[in-house]
Amino acid sequence: MSAAPVAYARKDLLQIRGMSVDEITGLLDATREYQDPSVRSDALRGHVVVNLFLEPSTRTRTSFEIAAKRLGGDVVNIAAAASSLVKGETLVDTTRTLDAMHPSAIVVRHASAGAPAIVATHSRASVVNGGDGAHEHPTQALLDARTILDRKSRIEGLRVVIAGDILHSRVARSNAYLLTALGATVVFSGPETLVPAAIDTIADGVEIAPSFDAALEGADVVMMLRVQLERQHEAFFPSLGEYHARYGLTEARLRTASPDAIVMHPGPVNRGVEITPEVADGPQSTILEQVANGVAVRMAVLDAVVNGRSRRIAS
Amino acid sequence: MSAAPVAYARKDLLQIRGMSVDEITGLLDATREYQDPSVRSDALRGHVVVNLFLEPSTRTRTSFEIAAKRLGGDVVNIAAAASSLVKGETLVDTTRTLDAMHPSAIVVRHASAGAPAIVATHSRASVVNGGDGAHEHPTQALLDARTILDRKSRIEGLRVVIAGDILHSRVARSNAYLLTALGATVVFSGPETLVPAAIDTIADGVEIAPSFDAALEGADVVMMLRVQLERQHEAFFPSLGEYHARYGLTEARLRTASPDAIVMHPGPVNRGVEITPEVADGPQSTILEQVANGVAVRMAVLDAVVNGRSRRIAS
Amino acid sequence: MSAAPVAYARKDLLQIRGMSVDEITGLLDATREYQDPSVRSDALRGHVVVNLFLEPSTRTRTSFEIAAKRLGGDVVNIAAAASSLVKGETLVDTTRTLDAMHPSAIVVRHASAGAPAIVATHSRASVVNGGDGAHEHPTQALLDARTILDRKSRIEGLRVVIAGDILHSRVARSNAYLLTALGATVVFSGPETLVPAAIDTIADGVEIAPSFDAALEGADVVMMLRVQLERQHEAFFPSLGEYHARYGLTEARLRTASPDAIVMHPGPVNRGVEITPEVADGPQSTILEQVANGVAVRMAVLDAVVNGRSRRIAS
Repeated sequence: MSAAPVAYARKDLLQIRGMSVDEITGLLDATREYQDPSVRSDALRGHVVVNLFLEPSTRTRTSFEIAAKRLGGDVVNIAAAASSLVKGETLVDTTRTLDAMHPSAIVVRHASAGAPAIVATHSRASVVNGGDGAHEHPTQALLDARTILDRKSRIEGLRVVIAGDILHSRVARSNAYLLTALGATVVFSGPETLVPAAIDTIADGVEIAPSFDAALEGADVVMMLRVQLERQHEAFFPSLGEYHARYGLTEARLRTASPDAIVMHPGPVNRGVEITPEVADGPQSTILEQVANGVAVRMAVLDAVVNGRSRRIAS
Repeated sequence: MSAAPVAYARKDLLQIRGMSVDEITGLLDATREYQDPSVRSDALRGHVVVNLFLEPSTRTRTSFEIAAKRLGGDVVNIAAAASSLVKGETLVDTTRTLDAMHPSAIVVRHASAGAPAIVATHSRASVVNGGDGAHEHPTQALLDARTILDRKSRIEGLRVVIAGDILHSRVARSNAYLLTALGATVVFSGPETLVPAAIDTIADGVEIAPSFDAALEGADVVMMLRVQLERQHEAFFPSLGEYHARYGLTEARLRTASPDAIVMHPGPVNRGVEITPEVADGPQSTILEQVANGVAVRMAVLDAVVNGRSRRIAS
Repeated sequence: MSAAPVAYARKDLLQIRGMSVDEITGLLDATREYQDPSVRSDALRGHVVVNLFLEPSTRTRTSFEIAAKRLGGDVVNIAAAASSLVKGETLVDTTRTLDAMHPSAIVVRHASAGAPAIVATHSRASVVNGGDGAHEHPTQALLDARTILDRKSRIEGLRVVIAGDILHSRVARSNAYLLTALGATVVFSGPETLVPAAIDTIADGVEIAPSFDAALEGADVVMMLRVQLERQHEAFFPSLGEYHARYGLTEARLRTASPDAIVMHPGPVNRGVEITPEVADGPQSTILEQVANGVAVRMAVLDAVVNGRSRRIAS
């Protein structure tokens, strides 16, 4: 319903990498309109949004579904389990089939990096990456940035520690691109097996700190990643207990960060593994603000990709 | 759309136990407005209702979904199978996450007694218990009561026999609380292994009758519970044939009840086990009226818990 | 929203067999109104459409769901996997239960031929067959006919080759009934094990051609059926390679058909088995037009069965 032109006028949102500062701040600004949970609009009235979740994720699917419905859109969910659509069919054919039904947007969650880009190439619909392999999760980075701005009013100059399984984390990558683009320093910390050697070259302002304790000193933001328990058998680290001892965020450890540091986590949380309950539920934690901002960011993104181009032309 | 104040003004509907007679009759009266299946309203327009069904139930989920949509609400379904939301996450964390997305109501179905109460405690949303373990299924009791009132115009003084697996039945418990609160006598009958010894102490007006034939004499309402075939291996009774011989409702047996007795069943029916096809499909059966009233009751309940408080203040 | 009376005024759409030419052309004409993907209407506003998919099919379910939502309807999906509704319950009881919730339409997909007819008999709701066993798939035949008309402006006098697994194909049957009713010749071709001996007796104008190459000569329409890879172990033919050699549609083979022949496929396509990528993606292929017409046809059908009777009376 906002008549203001938004900075973001592309057809798709596939990754943070390559987005301009104006595009990022445009979406972050547009999100503010939707942070009041009572806001409804007709921005997607008459539009069909397909949630194509070929890797399961109730949390992200629910967030996109609520976002689309608050904008008046119709949502069609396609889940991996039930999906005969994709049986014996290439992703390109699935995309073309969906495209022929003329949805306005397709949100793609996929276990393989690059899948949303393939969907975007073969569809006239706007495609939003809902997380693809270890590549990117752009709406997560946007909701994290919105949360940081709400708490600290700036991103430039902040020291952001991202700790845990960097290797498999699309959240870590999207955040590193976004936060360094806006002037933050991002410090990756985690077990050597889970921090790729050259990960600090993906963007200016990214650093690696093998010692989590050293990384935390003076940190303004501490973002804990979820330990993927289903990878336990791959033996990236000796045990959950040992992981917690070296990389778990405890109250004692948090005291080495800046006194007004915030603690973030994309969820779901493994209490007692990467973070203690006291920290997860403490005053510095922004975990639930992140979830709330997730709906707001996705409303802004869906509005922008579906309506942004025409609005820009009109204004 | 009704401007009339409703008696039920609580945030949640978790159980019949503890509800006042005014609350119960308030909801039963409000249901009448929705018994005409062509009635639509905007009572939930702009509201998101989450169906959190962590124990599968297509029947109850569908009933709540249709109820919410007839009130103009948006429905988000979360099913156990697809639910990575809850993987490695406590119910409290799942609740907080959902709550941060600001749904107006959460309908909870769960295999564990007490789960909806936990969700209610940790959420600002109104929570409706859609059945929890062997605890309660309050909307089932309300739809049963609405059906009895439609047929017999009163509940006070009626003799209601509830027969079968009392031990595992939340339907039996919710009905016992509700019907005795409104002045009926409730007689539980079933195999000794499936009727807890002290179940007659849960409310004044509850009795136990080991003999189903004796229980039926003069009964005004005969409510047959579903034999849970999936518990067969637990050997609560010798065989389905023997069960039917002693506790199956046949036309012959039904003749010992009051001539205008009604026959109820929460569904789905095991034809030929707890009830014969002739009785299930006969003129005394209210099975399909119960299903129809299910949608109407759930419309009244969702309207009441979401809008009841503000309406009461305004009136 | 169309005020024009439609020729199709029955409660249900269960099969093409037995439909009059007026009914078929009535629905095909009504479809044209919905071929513009931007068209929305309120034809199903306030109506609940149940997608009862007891055999999984994301493609068809999605098409019906988008169709119903574009008409302003509310859609409730019931999938086989999650369906405790049907556990230990007959299809008749499931139908009666759904019917008691007063949906306006039920779309039925079922592995057994005749299931939608059972649902139609026991429900006041309009029932649309979304594919039942090897019986019929009427909306598929309608969308195929709409596609042929768009490309060739007529059906009468056309030579339509339908090739592959005729034995198990509801698509082949529905198309044979519809296309011969409108004056086309339908030629079935496929491995002997997959073409029932007397299939040419189901309608006047149906022929069998064991040689695919001979069948193709002068064909105006070549409709390739999907090889059901899940039947491979049943050994209906020696190997996929041999199948492709004899019944795969290649560019070379297609040249024996009429120069302006069109190539159809109900999807999903097994590239390199029943059809080569070059043909599937070539200028003669109508595969994506079929998908697009699927939504339009289903809008016309849902509108007709739900609103057709009252409209006919009013006009």
